[in-house]
Amino acid sequence: MSVRAAVMEKPHCPVRIWEMDEPEIEAGAVLLRTLAAEVCGTDVHLWHGRLAGVPYPIIPGHVSVGAVEATGGDVADVDGRKLRRGDIVTFLDVHETCHACWHCLVAKLSTRCPHRKVYGITYSAADGLLGGWSERIYLKPGVSIVTLPPEVSPDLWIAAGCGLPTALHAVDLAAIKIGDSVLVQGAGPVGLAACALAQASGATWVGVVDGSPLRRQAALRMGASQCFDVTADMVADVLGATHGRGADVVLEASGNPEAVRQGCEMARDGGRYVIVGQYTDNGPVELNPHAHINRKHLTMQGCWGSDLSHIYRGANALARFGARFPWTGLISRRYALSEVNEALADVEARRVVKAVIVP
Amino acid sequence: MSVRAAVMEKPHCPVRIWEMDEPEIEAGAVLLRTLAAEVCGTDVHLWHGRLAGVPYPIIPGHVSVGAVEATGGDVADVDGRKLRRGDIVTFLDVHETCHACWHCLVAKLSTRCPHRKVYGITYSAADGLLGGWSERIYLKPGVSIVTLPPEVSPDLWIAAGCGLPTALHAVDLAAIKIGDSVLVQGAGPVGLAACALAQASGATWVGVVDGSPLRRQAALRMGASQCFDVTADMVADVLGATHGRGADVVLEASGNPEAVRQGCEMARDGGRYVIVGQYTDNGPVELNPHAHINRKHLTMQGCWGSDLSHIYRGANALARFGARFPWTGLISRRYALSEVNEALADVEARRVVKAVIVP
Amino acid sequence: MSVRAAVMEKPHCPVRIWEMDEPEIEAGAVLLRTLAAEVCGTDVHLWHGRLAGVPYPIIPGHVSVGAVEATGGDVADVDGRKLRRGDIVTFLDVHETCHACWHCLVAKLSTRCPHRKVYGITYSAADGLLGGWSERIYLKPGVSIVTLPPEVSPDLWIAAGCGLPTALHAVDLAAIKIGDSVLVQGAGPVGLAACALAQASGATWVGVVDGSPLRRQAALRMGASQCFDVTADMVADVLGATHGRGADVVLEASGNPEAVRQGCEMARDGGRYVIVGQYTDNGPVELNPHAHINRKHLTMQGCWGSDLSHIYRGANALARFGARFPWTGLISRRYALSEVNEALADVEARRVVKAVIVP
Amino acid sequence: MSVRAAVMEKPHCPVRIWEMDEPEIEAGAVLLRTLAAEVCGTDVHLWHGRLAGVPYPIIPGHVSVGAVEATGGDVADVDGRKLRRGDIVTFLDVHETCHACWHCLVAKLSTRCPHRKVYGITYSAADGLLGGWSERIYLKPGVSIVTLPPEVSPDLWIAAGCGLPTALHAVDLAAIKIGDSVLVQGAGPVGLAACALAQASGATWVGVVDGSPLRRQAALRMGASQCFDVTADMVADVLGATHGRGADVVLEASGNPEAVRQGCEMARDGGRYVIVGQYTDNGPVELNPHAHINRKHLTMQGCWGSDLSHIYRGANALARFGARFPWTGLISRRYALSEVNEALADVEARRVVKAVIVP
Repeated sequence: MSVRAAVMEKPHCPVRIWEMDEPEIEAGAVLLRTLAAEVCGTDVHLWHGRLAGVPYPIIPGHVSVGAVEATGGDVADVDGRKLRRGDIVTFLDVHETCHACWHCLVAKLSTRCPHRKVYGITYSAADGLLGGWSERIYLKPGVSIVTLPPEVSPDLWIAAGCGLPTALHAVDLAAIKIGDSVLVQGAGPVGLAACALAQASGATWVGVVDGSPLRRQAALRMGASQCFDVTADMVADVLGATHGRGADVVLEASGNPEAVRQGCEMARDGGRYVIVGQYTDNGPVELNPHAHINRKHLTMQGCWGSDLSHIYRGANALARFGARFPWTGLISRRYALSEVNEALADVEARRVVKAVIVP
Repeated sequence: MSVRAAVMEKPHCPVRIWEMDEPEIEAGAVLLRTLAAEVCGTDVHLWHGRLAGVPYPIIPGHVSVGAVEATGGDVADVDGRKLRRGDIVTFLDVHETCHACWHCLVAKLSTRCPHRKVYGITYSAADGLLGGWSERIYLKPGVSIVTLPPEVSPDLWIAAGCGLPTALHAVDLAAIKIGDSVLVQGAGPVGLAACALAQASGATWVGVVDGSPLRRQAALRMGASQCFDVTADMVADVLGATHGRGADVVLEASGNPEAVRQGCEMARDGGRYVIVGQYTDNGPVELNPHAHINRKHLTMQGCWGSDLSHIYRGANALARFGARFPWTGLISRRYALSEVNEALADVEARRVVKAVIVP
Repeated sequence: MSVRAAVMEKPHCPVRIWEMDEPEIEAGAVLLRTLAAEVCGTDVHLWHGRLAGVPYPIIPGHVSVGAVEATGGDVADVDGRKLRRGDIVTFLDVHETCHACWHCLVAKLSTRCPHRKVYGITYSAADGLLGGWSERIYLKPGVSIVTLPPEVSPDLWIAAGCGLPTALHAVDLAAIKIGDSVLVQGAGPVGLAACALAQASGATWVGVVDGSPLRRQAALRMGASQCFDVTADMVADVLGATHGRGADVVLEASGNPEAVRQGCEMARDGGRYVIVGQYTDNGPVELNPHAHINRKHLTMQGCWGSDLSHIYRGANALARFGARFPWTGLISRRYALSEVNEALADVEARRVVKAVIVP
Repeated sequence: MSVRAAVMEKPHCPVRIWEMDEPEIEAGAVLLRTLAAEVCGTDVHLWHGRLAGVPYPIIPGHVSVGAVEATGGDVADVDGRKLRRGDIVTFLDVHETCHACWHCLVAKLSTRCPHRKVYGITYSAADGLLGGWSERIYLKPGVSIVTLPPEVSPDLWIAAGCGLPTALHAVDLAAIKIGDSVLVQGAGPVGLAACALAQASGATWVGVVDGSPLRRQAALRMGASQCFDVTADMVADVLGATHGRGADVVLEASGNPEAVRQGCEMARDGGRYVIVGQYTDNGPVELNPHAHINRKHLTMQGCWGSDLSHIYRGANALARFGARFPWTGLISRRYALSEVNEALADVEARRVVKAVIVP
């Protein structure tokens, strides 16, 4: 039997459908029937060739959900439960983290391990069905698998998508406490997930900044206390909404370097600022170290990547908070495999909040 | 009896000696005979009028050491010990922190309390002997007083000076662990104290960056493992000295905005960066949020001011580590009250590491 | 005009109503018309003479809410807002924390300051209207006052009562993260508030242990995921509900020493355990340091008292989460001043969840 | 060629010398010529059969140092440096941590991974040369290897022994800050290493408690500020030495359950207490949760095991602090393989501080 997969052969060219062979399943591997995969901003970056070291042709799609089709002998999920055909699972796109180097063992900074590979990004289509935009996904031996709790449908999981673990990592670093005011910069998938998770962490005021009315509306539906357009008055408006002090916590999820200076200005003295949106290089920003950092007694943290704990705990969080926030309403449109070029164009133009591939 | 004090009447003018009345001592107040006071970079800023809200004329000198001359009834030090005439003490220059506002009680950020006043900086000479460049210092009721341990001579205390509590606060934020590599930017009084305290905190490698050969030599005497000039090769040299990874911890104590970008580049992935040297506004710096913060998973912390705990623990630290580092060797010259203008000029021109006033 | 107050003249005797003079109001002081005051377990301890150093006769009632009747000149709340007649406020019962001693300034442990006094507990009725079981409460100069947000009615505030700031302190120490499982031991006012705050902090499973069916029902109404009776199977049942591992976080709010051993057994390896319920000495417990602490890699924290931040943030939390949990349903009965002896008997017998005095 | 190894065939019997075959070296494995191995308290426990699940016969010796004799192809140390014949290395005795389970990936608690195995403890002699009391040690593929820095001789490494990484883990948890007073309970190898590391972390007073005069003398040589015998006055004496408050940090390394209650009593209010010495079950202790934990606002942490980071950073620490403390003076005697029964008897009787096997 053959498997249809959408392949990005090289940057700047239309993605094409390939017919690929169904793989043989090694011991310890798992074959998934793809139920849904995500199109996210990173895929647009891949399409424009903005990431270094990508082994085109690739099958994009790093966050996905599938049903177990076959396993290479006994394979267990992270809870140690043996997988069976039909189980609905997701997995950590990051694989081959070595657990043997200084980054992994001494710095305990596995997201910076130089050996890590990422499904849908740094595996080549020549190596197999190693991305989500495909009817099947091949999980190599050792890929970390999480069975979705019964409360979490495939639709719910993919609606939260890669924004959820990314935002969860950022929210963890922010150490939000009961009663904190939290400002989120950017209302894309990461920012919207951060808006929900900040509320779920005890924030009593969550403001969201975004230049797009569509996204500000999405933020309000996700429970934002107040939204702010990106204007000359924005900083003053946020200060006005936070007793003139600024927010206890600011989470940057915009990707815009200028946002970093504004975020410093909108955080309170002694506040915490987590920068998670600067995943690709969009250029520099001018900061005043005296006014923006030193005198403010500000803590700023860069947040890079996510790991299995964020996937696992994200699944728990959706099981509990899935009904409290309109996650699935974030899915603007579902696309067939044959429509992935449209999906990419829609995400790039920000015509959609969330684009989902249903192969 | 009259008291001689050096008064900075306004910016840009020579400091002049005033003859002032010996004050009446309120209940709870303490009069000190000044043994030594410091001339630090802040005093140069005061001389140039770079700080806002200074009520000239002022008696500068925020870190000082003195002998108790008289007390207004029973007055105790922070340990609850009753002070007696002749006791050698120091005190927290910051006073009138209100312990009643949101900053003090909710944010627990007393160094940002809007009501705080600072001896030698924000008290006017019209209000009394409220600065160290004077034969006597009047400690108002409620000023926090620390008796120096017997191992800590007045000379030792003033040699460490205000650099010690400032550096101690920064080193606390950096949470240095056994085996860390630490890079200090700037070898002025704060940087040199940070160099010593990093070693005392378990760092196994302490590098120091400074453009002045005099200061690099001082850093080596303070036990730096390696010193680096500020050149085009500096970043590469530091990476070369730290397994190509960068330092686990970077402490900025230079006052130069450009140092902040360089510090980001010299910190390792997942490193911690404390910015303490940007006490006055020396302009902006260009950072790349992607490369310098986000992808690095870097933690940056601004460090503003110090509090009584840093003075108290600093005195303990000197009692223990005083002999291990050549603190008193940092005193380049002692000046009489009549020589304060010379002292200011020497500090400004960086002809001295540490200038001490002996009234 | 005279003021009626309920006075506990000495332990083991009925509380009696005194007619007291309306006080003169010093500069900086505030007189409140009491709207509601609480009867809590501590009051029963006072009644039985179990606390040391209590200056009987006293007016009990440490958490209260009132309307401003008069102020001694301009007096501000913690936000710096000037108080006006009729404002609905609460206040921190702890007063005279010195902000001058080693505990306050070096250890930064203000709840252990030896100078602190507590309204309703360590002030004598001879000193004035310094407890909540009275028609008026006299707030001395410097008492920390928080104006209730409009969303927080006096009824809502007193329903949460002193359990709220106490639980908030404990929940802060527990550092609950999104996805954590939390077990609360004890469903009295502190435990029920902890149950709500754990949910509001991101816990995805909150179990509650209590021997009383009435209290277990209250816990379920407060949103507990599951309740457990105190039986021989309890530990096994909780392990069974938490993947066999135990809870990520355990919060002890029972007052029973045996609970501490059980809590160790119900926490997971590497879990966090906060002990807040052992406010009075109820005797010892046997622990096995190897099995309960060392091998478990367990973190245990004692939690003593609360401070203004917990009151302030608690008020914010109620403004946001007040409607989400049935706080006011916790009030079992309201008592007039003349009925305080009944109230004490009901609290002692655990016939009520929460008893409120409406003077 | 055959290899001589000391084999503990079963509990309570003399250890015997076996002649074993030199192993074939798989790809990724390393064969070491043993330079020194340790006899520690755990080996006595093994000898008495006090640990569960030990697959006798075993070759004891979990911390060792050796010279590379041969490698199975290219094998690198943790820094990524290729190993060569003659390199002096040590290794993490813990192996087969799975990096795939909930403990490893979600709780990030690798020392509690159920799959971990330990050289010298949970590997059988039937499986090969998997313990240090042998002329050769076989490092299976994936064992984490650390090359000793040139400043760290085999003698220095083994003198610090397994006490060093264990104490480093405990000292990390204690988060010692400049100026802290630290009390260490127990002056065996872990306690003596903790005594040194506490000083190296910025403690300005380090007290040590031990019942043995020999060990108290060793503690003084390791730089203890003051030593205390285990007497009825001990608690009072320690309080007297710490301003009547107790130590900021207490580190338990005694193995005696009673020490845990005493430790609570000797820690200050709000102090931190790390319990690392209760590695085996020596029975219960009675604590008073009110007085010892809750009212003290005490933080207690159990510390279980160590990981590669503690070995790696421990090697760095010895390179820096090796000369500052008389580590090698801790070696009371060196034993040939044929003398291991004597070594065990000497360790059991506490006739030696540190016993080293030189095969």
